[in-house]
Amino acid sequence: MPSQEKTARLLYDALATGDRAVLDAILDPAFAGEATEGLPFGLGGSHAGAEAMIRDFWWAIGRHYRARAEPAEFLALADGGLLVLGRYTGTAREGGRPLDAAFAHVLTFTDDGRIASLRQYTDSARWAGASRSVPAGRRELRVVRYEVADGVATVGLDRPEAGNAIDPTMVEDLDEATFRAAHDPAVRAVLLRGTGRSLSVGGDLAYFTRHADDIPARLRGIIDRYHVTLDRLATLDAPVVCAVHGALAGGGLGLAHVSDIVVAADDSRFAVGYGAIGLASDGANTWYLPRLVGMRRAQEMFLLNRMLTGPEALEAGLVTEVVPAAELAARARELATTLAAGPTRAFGHMKRLLLASQDADLAGQLAEETRRMTATGATADAREGITAFVERRRPDFRGR
Amino acid sequence: MPSQEKTARLLYDALATGDRAVLDAILDPAFAGEATEGLPFGLGGSHAGAEAMIRDFWWAIGRHYRARAEPAEFLALADGGLLVLGRYTGTAREGGRPLDAAFAHVLTFTDDGRIASLRQYTDSARWAGASRSVPAGRRELRVVRYEVADGVATVGLDRPEAGNAIDPTMVEDLDEATFRAAHDPAVRAVLLRGTGRSLSVGGDLAYFTRHADDIPARLRGIIDRYHVTLDRLATLDAPVVCAVHGALAGGGLGLAHVSDIVVAADDSRFAVGYGAIGLASDGANTWYLPRLVGMRRAQEMFLLNRMLTGPEALEAGLVTEVVPAAELAARARELATTLAAGPTRAFGHMKRLLLASQDADLAGQLAEETRRMTATGATADAREGITAFVERRRPDFRGR
Amino acid sequence: MPSQEKTARLLYDALATGDRAVLDAILDPAFAGEATEGLPFGLGGSHAGAEAMIRDFWWAIGRHYRARAEPAEFLALADGGLLVLGRYTGTAREGGRPLDAAFAHVLTFTDDGRIASLRQYTDSARWAGASRSVPAGRRELRVVRYEVADGVATVGLDRPEAGNAIDPTMVEDLDEATFRAAHDPAVRAVLLRGTGRSLSVGGDLAYFTRHADDIPARLRGIIDRYHVTLDRLATLDAPVVCAVHGALAGGGLGLAHVSDIVVAADDSRFAVGYGAIGLASDGANTWYLPRLVGMRRAQEMFLLNRMLTGPEALEAGLVTEVVPAAELAARARELATTLAAGPTRAFGHMKRLLLASQDADLAGQLAEETRRMTATGATADAREGITAFVERRRPDFRGR
Repeated sequence: MPSQEKTARLLYDALATGDRAVLDAILDPAFAGEATEGLPFGLGGSHAGAEAMIRDFWWAIGRHYRARAEPAEFLALADGGLLVLGRYTGTAREGGRPLDAAFAHVLTFTDDGRIASLRQYTDSARWAGASRSVPAGRRELRVVRYEVADGVATVGLDRPEAGNAIDPTMVEDLDEATFRAAHDPAVRAVLLRGTGRSLSVGGDLAYFTRHADDIPARLRGIIDRYHVTLDRLATLDAPVVCAVHGALAGGGLGLAHVSDIVVAADDSRFAVGYGAIGLASDGANTWYLPRLVGMRRAQEMFLLNRMLTGPEALEAGLVTEVVPAAELAARARELATTLAAGPTRAFGHMKRLLLASQDADLAGQLAEETRRMTATGATADAREGITAFVERRRPDFRGR
Repeated sequence: MPSQEKTARLLYDALATGDRAVLDAILDPAFAGEATEGLPFGLGGSHAGAEAMIRDFWWAIGRHYRARAEPAEFLALADGGLLVLGRYTGTAREGGRPLDAAFAHVLTFTDDGRIASLRQYTDSARWAGASRSVPAGRRELRVVRYEVADGVATVGLDRPEAGNAIDPTMVEDLDEATFRAAHDPAVRAVLLRGTGRSLSVGGDLAYFTRHADDIPARLRGIIDRYHVTLDRLATLDAPVVCAVHGALAGGGLGLAHVSDIVVAADDSRFAVGYGAIGLASDGANTWYLPRLVGMRRAQEMFLLNRMLTGPEALEAGLVTEVVPAAELAARARELATTLAAGPTRAFGHMKRLLLASQDADLAGQLAEETRRMTATGATADAREGITAFVERRRPDFRGR
Repeated sequence: MPSQEKTARLLYDALATGDRAVLDAILDPAFAGEATEGLPFGLGGSHAGAEAMIRDFWWAIGRHYRARAEPAEFLALADGGLLVLGRYTGTAREGGRPLDAAFAHVLTFTDDGRIASLRQYTDSARWAGASRSVPAGRRELRVVRYEVADGVATVGLDRPEAGNAIDPTMVEDLDEATFRAAHDPAVRAVLLRGTGRSLSVGGDLAYFTRHADDIPARLRGIIDRYHVTLDRLATLDAPVVCAVHGALAGGGLGLAHVSDIVVAADDSRFAVGYGAIGLASDGANTWYLPRLVGMRRAQEMFLLNRMLTGPEALEAGLVTEVVPAAELAARARELATTLAAGPTRAFGHMKRLLLASQDADLAGQLAEETRRMTATGATADAREGITAFVERRRPDFRGR
């Protein structure tokens, strides 16, 4: 079997089993994806980079469809590429209506045999027909407010009567709002905030008591969707600023954790609270808390339900700075505006380097830094930044 | 070859080579093991969950026997299960007498092809005959005191004339006492403490000078066994409270490291001490110290033999709290008693999440949180906890 | 195919693809390498241990040659060893002249089938002829001063007119000086320092503006070489002391990061600075900063270009201690001299354990500690250390 067909077969197998490691191995990091424009849920259009293709296309398909791409024919192209013909089959997750649509995929390859690009041709009406949902990016927001100004996307939790507790509507809206921010090139910083007395008291326990016979499935439904939002914020190019006021508890803490800069009001307070209700953890608390506040403090929070005040949270390393409650909104906006004027691509590389370093060894991280430093060296912002530095003037970054 | 036989063969290969990754892949996390009751060393009886089966059965076999399960026949059962017939062959590690015992294993499988359960039938007299040792859980304690009251197992180091130095007797007794705690469902918290002037001065150097011609082998013998105890405490469901008084040094520090809550007397002091005697590290010091006190402080402790006082240890993050020496015993017991009234299963999940997070990436940890949060959502304690919260009353947790 | 030939073929494949994991699996940790004496770049001579062989021989070949060892015949030897005959083919990286030299490799194996040793016979004149470079260890230093006294190798950055900025000459000289330190058995501690107003302001931006059309390639050239130096210092047996004065910024911070003890003048200051010029990170900043100063402080430094003063750096955990500027040189030398009198082999094991622990799980680290603790137990310094402890006298360590 020609090696390109072999690699293509690996691709379809890896997509069927969700095998991320194989995808990382066979896709060129600079992979370019071109999906059929009309696909629902914002799936269509360009996806630049293997990371974006996996996160925003293939994984995103998985969130909306239980579907599988079944290749039938592999035809070598004269220019070294490969044409794969087959069908998508499955069902839409919401509604469960069947999906059955033919596809043609045109694959190209790098010199060293990785997949360099994929152009997808499929019947998007079949996809839309399987699901009646409004596509992501165009859904109505109910308990989250979203607006973009001066390069800053503000995502405001707005369910004050329930302390911005996290229920199915809240996770859907957070998904929608952060999806919009992630796909709008004008957005160069994100500001997370909330209305009412608290940023978020965590999972909506009243919701769970209403579904007491079905708690595990209800938990899974909410957490699955919420974790997509958290992962998206953590890996976004645009820096995220979080303004914390009142209580931030349970899974709600995740919003602060994945942010890059956290400003807390002096009267804010932080607690995980799971021990009091016999649950384990969500919202990435077990990943971030030992890293932010240290293992001993994290254990105290989990096992003894220790609460931290704003100043304690600053001292412990949970937040970046503490300000008087009255100054919170202004300070958070000031920081977001400053960051929105920065070198957005370089910020994205820094964010991913800091994230990747957490489970990397030194040698691996050195190699990754070389790769990303070199990548930023080719940006317009770096040329501007280095020139401005030598000319002793302020750089004018455009986020490119 | 039918796929179930293939999976079963993978199991026997993985057990022969100790390949943990393969076991994790082919065993259902909810795996149920049923071992022949009469096996020595506490090996017999039920093991709930793949983790427990590996840790308390297969790995435990490896600690007591150099043995191997050699399958001879694989017979498909009408209900979809598999009957494997073969022999255990090898020798007991202590005494070295030969083991040769036939076995029948009945395996069942999940829908997705993982191994769901294993029932073992073998001649336990052959196993006991190969070893004359008293089974774990029933050995006599000599330098460690053990008692259970109010759900709290107290493990007390009691070799005060030697500063509770760690020698072969001490590691055997710590193994026995923590084995008992791990296998007693009534135990919902563990309290580590010591008699005399210090919790533990670390390895018994006098013992090593008596065996100066054989130091590497003596070190290995003690450390191998001691590390089993530390790993057991770190992964136990029941939270572990450690009361530190006087000196805690060298490998002895490991007792505090693997604990969840560490209370130190104000006159306690902490040092690694390896550099002064030309050794490297044991007791998980190199894993915990950078995580607890930071890399710079850890380097100072290792390379310059820096000692930390109790208050410095608190400030650095090595211990959870510091109390006057006179109040140490009461405070540690109070904390253990509080924890023993908590949701023990959820505590176990939290402990394992915090441990796993240390070398996980964010996406992996998010998935693991979803899995464990959902698992705790199905416990009686979570139903009680959520109901009590909504009813604004104290929950009555039973540890289930 | 006999299993030893199979293992040998794995070796040549792994060397061709740079597959470190395979090398770790097939080489005995106590591997002994004996390379042809006359090889250039300091490649010749003994390499004790798999780690040293990989780092200082095979990887070092890769830095100087684009070459490949092509085995042609595998001949079993009567004593169980293997004779491999073949040719090295490729080009020298500098100059690009062709390399074509026959080789004979004599391999021996451990009982469990790993490769225990390799003796290399090749025509070193062919290697030298392919490259006209002066071998490493014998190159002239231009902007770095190097001297050895009392077991301490002092590496002094000496480009004061440019704030010890890092350009191609600086990275070449740092490579040369640290290579000398790493290969001199008399060196038992390293002291890093600088002349002029600052230890190092980081990458030389003036150099990059002179090559504004070629920034990515210039970045890669400098960083590749600089990262070799950082990795070498981080894994050296001899402890490294860094004396920081004035500014330490950008990639220059890496010199402090990889050191074991960092002494800073009270008027020193630390900043990453990448954000100001639109670049990502190098010098291992994204690996060390979250580990040393915590994630929140690291994010502030990267995204908001936060500067830390010496006292702030101490408080945050970036440096080991702060002293008045006038006392910096004396204090750093005192620490280096103290460390040079320590058990150098044990220090090396501690350093590697602390490094490895960063992406290890607890169980893996416990096993690694057992291995390295046992290894140090066999050293002359450990025998001296334990004896001196029991005899209540100061140990006289020789670094062996």
